[in-house]
Amino acid sequence: MSPTISHDASAPVGVFDSGIGGLTVVSALRKLLPRENILYLGDTARVPYGGKTKETIGRYSREIAALLAGEGAKLIVVACNSASSLALPLLREKCEVPVQGVIHPGVEAALAATVSGHVAVIGTKATIGSGAYERELRTLRPDIRVTSVACPLLVPLIEEGMLEDPVTEAVLDRYVGPLRGTDADTLVLGCTHYPLLAAAIARVAGPGITLVDSAANCARSVAELLADRGLGAGAGQRGRLDINFTDPPDKFLQVAARVLGLDVGNVTVRSVPPLGQ
Amino acid sequence: MSPTISHDASAPVGVFDSGIGGLTVVSALRKLLPRENILYLGDTARVPYGGKTKETIGRYSREIAALLAGEGAKLIVVACNSASSLALPLLREKCEVPVQGVIHPGVEAALAATVSGHVAVIGTKATIGSGAYERELRTLRPDIRVTSVACPLLVPLIEEGMLEDPVTEAVLDRYVGPLRGTDADTLVLGCTHYPLLAAAIARVAGPGITLVDSAANCARSVAELLADRGLGAGAGQRGRLDINFTDPPDKFLQVAARVLGLDVGNVTVRSVPPLGQ
Repeated sequence: MSPTISHDASAPVGVFDSGIGGLTVVSALRKLLPRENILYLGDTARVPYGGKTKETIGRYSREIAALLAGEGAKLIVVACNSASSLALPLLREKCEVPVQGVIHPGVEAALAATVSGHVAVIGTKATIGSGAYERELRTLRPDIRVTSVACPLLVPLIEEGMLEDPVTEAVLDRYVGPLRGTDADTLVLGCTHYPLLAAAIARVAGPGITLVDSAANCARSVAELLADRGLGAGAGQRGRLDINFTDPPDKFLQVAARVLGLDVGNVTVRSVPPLGQ
Repeated sequence: MSPTISHDASAPVGVFDSGIGGLTVVSALRKLLPRENILYLGDTARVPYGGKTKETIGRYSREIAALLAGEGAKLIVVACNSASSLALPLLREKCEVPVQGVIHPGVEAALAATVSGHVAVIGTKATIGSGAYERELRTLRPDIRVTSVACPLLVPLIEEGMLEDPVTEAVLDRYVGPLRGTDADTLVLGCTHYPLLAAAIARVAGPGITLVDSAANCARSVAELLADRGLGAGAGQRGRLDINFTDPPDKFLQVAARVLGLDVGNVTVRSVPPLGQ
């Protein structure tokens, strides 16, 4: 952090995701930190990030972080597992405010939950391909066993609102069903969309598996970070929520808002300037 | 067309799509016009376009058309139904070379094929939401009956290579199955990805329906347009194929190349500059 940057406690927490899925993190933040102002940007004009490469995801993430920091964010939350997996070191190097991702909180919760020492992780191609969860799990506990499964069809199914549907169940059975025959006892939902599908995932994974919601764990880490740095909003009214997208959102915003019980209020559509312009 | 722009016959045909799906048009062009040089750009860094809005798709399309024209394309083929539906008038206004889309050729082929006068169209949300097929069908034949079905899960399933799969069959049954009980006798594959799934679509739609492949019909229109304007490559060697993506392609490129029998050769990764920079 640069010593020249200072924020008062009313500065917003900046949160971004490739699209609408990051609202699961916003919802968790609103419950845990109701007085914080939140500035959300969902990059719906370039969604999804999950099938794209490190270079492209890194560039998009830097552009958005610069926008959020430019509007006074006191902290940037990367509410996207793909961007957390592939762009976090870059963002921490380039940003003058603290940057919180979703991987580390999920890893800590998984290690606290597992008894068998065998953790499963599901996510997009980008997240699973990055090996970020596996690397972080092994760093904190070298003898951990990890089963990682890329689930590229889950985001499209969730965005179609097919949360309780035989097709989704069949797809989940292919991705998650094989875990039932193993001693994996903990399943990390390594994509911010997945908490919306938690009921179906739990059903297919079976009663022997504890789900770890990376959105809820990320919100807890944000609360700790704000407290540690004395950046938390003081006593007062409920914080403001400003939601921005780079392309007008489709009906999935209503699905997500309903499932999350989130009042999205007015939504602004704006573009993200390229860096160096 | 500006009278100041002239191209020799060896100038490339520029072709673009939001990603890899437009290679179905390239494959059809290679078969029909083997001597043409083809310059392809797939916008994999921002794929898919199918869920995005007219404004965003228009901006992306203009940026790419400017890039292709800047590299000497004598003709620009919009090998993407979403961009053809939403950006064609804009591109024709802004480009100094002819612009060929995929909608009109598919509409002409559908009208030639239907006996019952009831045509079905499947496509992305953007294509179906635009009403472009319906409008064009009715312009050419006011008494046509049209059933349009948005199929947002098909592109993700095709990109997973799940071309023969019970999950894909179940999804198709939901989208296309209801046509079996109607007198629709013609089904337009209104997305350049869909020809890769033609066998399964034909099976689910039943023997009473003729499939119209917008990629093959687009290639025929390109051949006519080049002949009409005297822009066709002369006798000579097989044309060059230069394939460019904005983000390195994933395994779907291999799936598509195999199914299409297309030799993709070397692939270049490059970015598309924003307009006005």
